[in-house]
Amino acid sequence: MPIQKTLQKIIVEIKEGTHPSDLAELVDELNDQQRKELFELLSDEEAALIIQEMEDFDQVSLIRLLTRHRASSILKEMAVDDATDLLGELSEEEVKELLSLIEEEAEEIKGLLRYREDTAGGIMTTEFIALPEDIPVEEAITRLREMAPDAEIIYYVYVINAQTKLTGVISLRDLIAAEDGTLLEEIMLRNVISVPADMDQEEVARLVSRYDLLAVPVVDEEQRLLGIITVDDIIDVIEEEATEDIYRLTGTGEVESVDILEASVFGIVRKRLPWLIISLLGGLLSGSVIGSFETILQSIVILAVFIPVIMDMGGNVGTQSSTLFVRGLATGEIEEKDTWRYFMREVKIGVAMGVINGFFIAIAAALWQGIPVLGVVVGIAMFTTISLAALIGTLIPIIFNHFGIDPAITSGPFVTTIKDVTGLLIYFYIATLFMRYLI
Amino acid sequence: MPIQKTLQKIIVEIKEGTHPSDLAELVDELNDQQRKELFELLSDEEAALIIQEMEDFDQVSLIRLLTRHRASSILKEMAVDDATDLLGELSEEEVKELLSLIEEEAEEIKGLLRYREDTAGGIMTTEFIALPEDIPVEEAITRLREMAPDAEIIYYVYVINAQTKLTGVISLRDLIAAEDGTLLEEIMLRNVISVPADMDQEEVARLVSRYDLLAVPVVDEEQRLLGIITVDDIIDVIEEEATEDIYRLTGTGEVESVDILEASVFGIVRKRLPWLIISLLGGLLSGSVIGSFETILQSIVILAVFIPVIMDMGGNVGTQSSTLFVRGLATGEIEEKDTWRYFMREVKIGVAMGVINGFFIAIAAALWQGIPVLGVVVGIAMFTTISLAALIGTLIPIIFNHFGIDPAITSGPFVTTIKDVTGLLIYFYIATLFMRYLI
Repeated sequence: MPIQKTLQKIIVEIKEGTHPSDLAELVDELNDQQRKELFELLSDEEAALIIQEMEDFDQVSLIRLLTRHRASSILKEMAVDDATDLLGELSEEEVKELLSLIEEEAEEIKGLLRYREDTAGGIMTTEFIALPEDIPVEEAITRLREMAPDAEIIYYVYVINAQTKLTGVISLRDLIAAEDGTLLEEIMLRNVISVPADMDQEEVARLVSRYDLLAVPVVDEEQRLLGIITVDDIIDVIEEEATEDIYRLTGTGEVESVDILEASVFGIVRKRLPWLIISLLGGLLSGSVIGSFETILQSIVILAVFIPVIMDMGGNVGTQSSTLFVRGLATGEIEEKDTWRYFMREVKIGVAMGVINGFFIAIAAALWQGIPVLGVVVGIAMFTTISLAALIGTLIPIIFNHFGIDPAITSGPFVTTIKDVTGLLIYFYIATLFMRYLI
Repeated sequence: MPIQKTLQKIIVEIKEGTHPSDLAELVDELNDQQRKELFELLSDEEAALIIQEMEDFDQVSLIRLLTRHRASSILKEMAVDDATDLLGELSEEEVKELLSLIEEEAEEIKGLLRYREDTAGGIMTTEFIALPEDIPVEEAITRLREMAPDAEIIYYVYVINAQTKLTGVISLRDLIAAEDGTLLEEIMLRNVISVPADMDQEEVARLVSRYDLLAVPVVDEEQRLLGIITVDDIIDVIEEEATEDIYRLTGTGEVESVDILEASVFGIVRKRLPWLIISLLGGLLSGSVIGSFETILQSIVILAVFIPVIMDMGGNVGTQSSTLFVRGLATGEIEEKDTWRYFMREVKIGVAMGVINGFFIAIAAALWQGIPVLGVVVGIAMFTTISLAALIGTLIPIIFNHFGIDPAITSGPFVTTIKDVTGLLIYFYIATLFMRYLI
């Protein structure tokens, strides 16, 4: 569709009440000049709704297209948590300037900006509803009717005591179902699940998913309510963390933080290169193992034929082992306390797979090359490599996890190298032992 | 903790109102005999709440421990969608017998059992609230108060016309905020986002995540309301699909459907073996490439030293390329229409990374072995392998996706083999061209 047409289409669709998320997608097709044009036509509220649905980097570039004044009035209309996220991407100076124009919400935003992006504090919003313990249900409902438009979610009403400490929670449906005259403290649930502001967002997501919550309150050390995190933000966290794990597990590194379609070729290359360089050095290291057995390879050149299969199988088993462990940890299926039990089982599995594959490759190698001893050498090497790969593939993420390093990165080039080096060393060492029967 | 103590602890915790999800975790530590003992002590309702939070396979084995009569009364207390999921895991005979004892909910469950497990119909529940268009707000609230305990979620009230077709939706907060006397049709949102019963669950999840919904209605061809899917089930779908992608991308295959901690060693080996066998055959194929260049390898044995680095780099770049593409597709960041633009960009990235790494390895090889021509050979081979790996790593998932096959499996052993074979062929072919300068 020609771009000018898209611009007109967006204007028509806004009038028809199209969902902001769909509008944001159309905006994605416009160039900077037209985005500027479009946003000059929109009300602050319309603009805020659309911007909230755009990707981080698009939000930033759009805000920079507008005058400071206009940008600040749009920010004022945005949900506090979204406005904070956007400001978090700007320079310190820009933030200062914009906040000075915002007035009212500036203090809240400043408060939120203090938290790290990937913690409970960083993803919470301050738009929640808290009511005192000692008011009756009908008064609560009246107050809700007045406040509702402002609060991001009113499906849970939080209850606080005279010291403004969080003491309970009532779901909107329990509130509606309750008899008039009942006090909130009589019907509220007292075992509120809450999280501290510095809890990792992944852990928050696990809690919300586990207890099927629609929102979770964030509290300080004195149990005072700081904000809430809603389930839609939790879904984003779950997707973000899965993407991060996938990239790390496949050795794709830190590409996630750029727009995969818009980023420059150079920008992407720079993100992907570090893992490749490590892989390159690892490959050279594995090669040097082969180099150190040059003499035996010279006399029995057929040994080279089995280098790929030894490397591939070690790599595959190692990746399977670390993937299962890392994902099991992430989904909560494996807990810290199960670690060693899991490890012992994985070693058994490795040995079993080593026996099966070792036997298979021994037969194949012996028949293919017509040298029975070669079958023995390759078979033993395969058995040892696979068993060790399962062991290393589980042990290294366990160790990383123990020291608080994301175990997902262990499946990358580091472990590949360790497995290749070990596998090749074992292979050529066994070949050396059997050398006189092979020549 | 000794098991007998755990049993007592659970009984105490139930009285204290511990969350069923935490109770389910404690039950996990009991053996069959004790589970039976415990569940005989519980009321049907308590049992239902705990079972709902247990893993599929644990639910099944527990239900089989109980008498048919007891099992059916617990099923009656469970949420309809959860009861259906559980029955879906049992044999046809068991289902028939249990349903005959359930009466009331049996028809609903039978209806739900018809849908495939991974579709909208398979994850929906029939416990929703639908009200007619022409009643006033206060009547709606009165009805809600009566019905609420039964409906899984009343945060959205669905509105149907005289032909029982879905015509609108009202959030509970809008309902509460509305003036008495207003008719539902006056305040309802008419653009309801709904899904057909056969929509893939992954697509449903994408919709819910995109529009930040708390629930989405499922309708038939005539727009009649069949059920709703709530956001907590969507979170499960997102985690399940991410796990599936992770396993496929890392060549871990279909392990997900077993309990990673409880399954037998043999069971796990059987699940992991198919990918390993493919990998084994792939490795032998790559080896046969080396075998076919045996003569040149015999005279220039040093060539073997660079086999690992060529294989590793090709593998790494190919995995990066397919991972980025597959994950981009899954999260919706890459759409079908962007495919070719993405492909062309990826090829450019491949060439750029090929130049950089080819240059680097050429210098390294030349200096390390003191043979400048060897540097040229390894450098050219590295450049070609990386460029091709990026191309193949993107092209194959594109083709798979085009034909409706999950592109995540392409990063597994299949593509590894294609890349290894191509990389090694190129390497040895170039070496042959330069042979007389190398000896």
